[in-house]
Amino acid sequence: MAAKKINAFYAQSGGVTAVINASACGVIETARQHKDRIGKVYAGRNGIIGALTEDLIDTSKESAAAIAGLRHTPSGAFGSCRYKLKSLEANKREYDRLIEVFKAHNIGYFFYNGGGDSADTCLKMSQLGKAMGYPLQAIHVPKTVDNDLPITDNCPGFGSVAKYIAVSTLEATYDVRSMAKTSTKVFVLEVMGRHAGWIAAAGAMASTTATELPIIVLFPEVLFDQKKFLARVDALVKKFGYCTIVVSEGCHYPDGKFLAEQGTRDAFGHAQLGGAAPVVANMVKDALGHKFHWGVADYLQRAARHIAAKTDVDQAYAVGKAAVEFALQGHNSVMPAIERTSNKPYKWKVGMAPLAKVANVEKMMPKSFITKDGFSITAKCREYLAPLMKGEDYPPYGADGLPKYVTLKNVAVTKKLPQFKL
Amino acid sequence: MAAKKINAFYAQSGGVTAVINASACGVIETARQHKDRIGKVYAGRNGIIGALTEDLIDTSKESAAAIAGLRHTPSGAFGSCRYKLKSLEANKREYDRLIEVFKAHNIGYFFYNGGGDSADTCLKMSQLGKAMGYPLQAIHVPKTVDNDLPITDNCPGFGSVAKYIAVSTLEATYDVRSMAKTSTKVFVLEVMGRHAGWIAAAGAMASTTATELPIIVLFPEVLFDQKKFLARVDALVKKFGYCTIVVSEGCHYPDGKFLAEQGTRDAFGHAQLGGAAPVVANMVKDALGHKFHWGVADYLQRAARHIAAKTDVDQAYAVGKAAVEFALQGHNSVMPAIERTSNKPYKWKVGMAPLAKVANVEKMMPKSFITKDGFSITAKCREYLAPLMKGEDYPPYGADGLPKYVTLKNVAVTKKLPQFKL
Repeated sequence: MAAKKINAFYAQSGGVTAVINASACGVIETARQHKDRIGKVYAGRNGIIGALTEDLIDTSKESAAAIAGLRHTPSGAFGSCRYKLKSLEANKREYDRLIEVFKAHNIGYFFYNGGGDSADTCLKMSQLGKAMGYPLQAIHVPKTVDNDLPITDNCPGFGSVAKYIAVSTLEATYDVRSMAKTSTKVFVLEVMGRHAGWIAAAGAMASTTATELPIIVLFPEVLFDQKKFLARVDALVKKFGYCTIVVSEGCHYPDGKFLAEQGTRDAFGHAQLGGAAPVVANMVKDALGHKFHWGVADYLQRAARHIAAKTDVDQAYAVGKAAVEFALQGHNSVMPAIERTSNKPYKWKVGMAPLAKVANVEKMMPKSFITKDGFSITAKCREYLAPLMKGEDYPPYGADGLPKYVTLKNVAVTKKLPQFKL
Repeated sequence: MAAKKINAFYAQSGGVTAVINASACGVIETARQHKDRIGKVYAGRNGIIGALTEDLIDTSKESAAAIAGLRHTPSGAFGSCRYKLKSLEANKREYDRLIEVFKAHNIGYFFYNGGGDSADTCLKMSQLGKAMGYPLQAIHVPKTVDNDLPITDNCPGFGSVAKYIAVSTLEATYDVRSMAKTSTKVFVLEVMGRHAGWIAAAGAMASTTATELPIIVLFPEVLFDQKKFLARVDALVKKFGYCTIVVSEGCHYPDGKFLAEQGTRDAFGHAQLGGAAPVVANMVKDALGHKFHWGVADYLQRAARHIAAKTDVDQAYAVGKAAVEFALQGHNSVMPAIERTSNKPYKWKVGMAPLAKVANVEKMMPKSFITKDGFSITAKCREYLAPLMKGEDYPPYGADGLPKYVTLKNVAVTKKLPQFKL
């Protein structure tokens, strides 16, 4: 006799990545393999907001080919959001509404695909059963380019950014090496990572024992020391003729002030937003006189599905798949986590982490991963990063030279409830 | 009886590209196939400076595998330079020196790989026979990401940048589309092209009839009209919920002032250099209040061999090969040019252009390629661009997830002459 069929809710939360849709693909394809127990997968349009406003997407209206295409499509196919639920005490109205929506659509599984803040939301949802008598199995699907979730060895989304930044740093460094004799001597690349330097660390991977390249990394974990930094630039340019600087957007002075907040003002006197790279580049120019170029990768880095790491794509899919399997096994308030079982050769499997230990905990770079001078990464860090960046997983391309990324139909589920004001 | 063996000089000039080394590969591999007529290929270390200072690289010391690796390695393997020779009248000393170096090393073929300025240098070299009695066959090998050389249908180096910018714009636009509900609504990407908007035009390729995306392009060819621009942003955000702006670094006001020169000053009152993207982003924020993100691709775009277009790699190799063949056929003062012989299907061949008609001529975007409103490209432009961006030509990758780019040994040729002061 078949067990009772219930529907699932899936949503994407926070900043999107090159592979968050691969997790969506893992969730939906696995759910489709269990039609005896999971009815439909409803996706929240723009994350949890879709649940609150009863703006649900019926993923069963998408073809198998379209869902399979999510595996090679960057960004959030259903829309994401930055919206953190308050505590049950502080905003019971929202939780009442969520339960109302879930009841109306027979939703018993809640899959939330996001980072640290989202893990907190997911944890709250997992407690609705006890707190409000609504039995919901909430499973968190990890995703963040920042690689700062605890317990899991790494976070889906990170390996692809790391590969993109390492490849871009390598390519740009070859470029400046070519130009240094009569032109640019210093290239500065700004990368994401407000609190943790994982992405910046990947820039250092461009220098290898086979081909040593002069690369300085400025981590958020290391307090910025201008004098020491400029001395390092000077030494590298004297030795190599050029150098590349990879600066994390979160790099800051001992007093906490970000490099990007240099009191720069536009013509109208407004404080200008953003840009650690131009600040660092001008600092080098003023002190040492070198001609420079600078780049800011911004969204390009986290959306770069065209150069995603195969390890990352595989793991993103696997955590989506595992989330559904955990739910079917009866679990609640957990997160599939990547476990590294071997380094050489690199082997991994999906384990299970209790959400209570994941939510609101940030994992910084360990001290043992940063060289003593604070400007590069150690062999231990290289050993950690390399397998995460390994392998290519190219999307298909069209005759116009562009990747064939998928845009879903995103058919709305008919609403059953009155409107809700956010 | 074998003809007399003479040596060849090859140098890279100006800004490097993702495929200039593919041209070097074409030159060197083809020369190696004609060992009966071409002795050695000497490369100039850092372009023409290597010839002036007798700093020659003996490419015969490189293995066949290393030379083959140039085909998939971005940047200039022998070093490039920004150094324009003055006229014969203005600086006879330099021409005397060049002839002295060429005589000392039995050099009779001169292959110069560069853009418009370099074509001018190459033209001057091609006239040395008549002007100074030294018979030199000078062939220009076209290269420029700016795509602004005349006669040739397109310039090797451009197709790969175009592909990179189109792919990046597509990916970043998918990203902002995901985030727009509660966060970023406008993404601004700054791209190269101080005079011609070819690279910016490629950004518009991300929007297709299959998936329409709201993308505004700001060309250097179109005088910037702030009011009209902001009205367009407003309309697109109202219709789509978000939009992407691709701004050329050369975009300027009717009075000639670049957008990047907004009188922005740092904390010390210094004029801040560069950055059309943050200027445009802040302009949108001030007028419409939208949350924004911005990126500056800078060297990343022209070094991005990892996503080079196959058409571009093939053509870069072909013009290098043709340059050697033209030389062996006895030609002087010419440039291999790409001829488009058919659009559907795209077909091309290598023709021959007289250098006198190439040097110092800049090819702008035709008016028929830009939409009447000045913010996008026409169907005619799409038809031109698509085949240039077509095809992938991936480099091999290592176990660390990085492309296996080649760094040559660059063994110096023993000097025979006294030093020369530049």
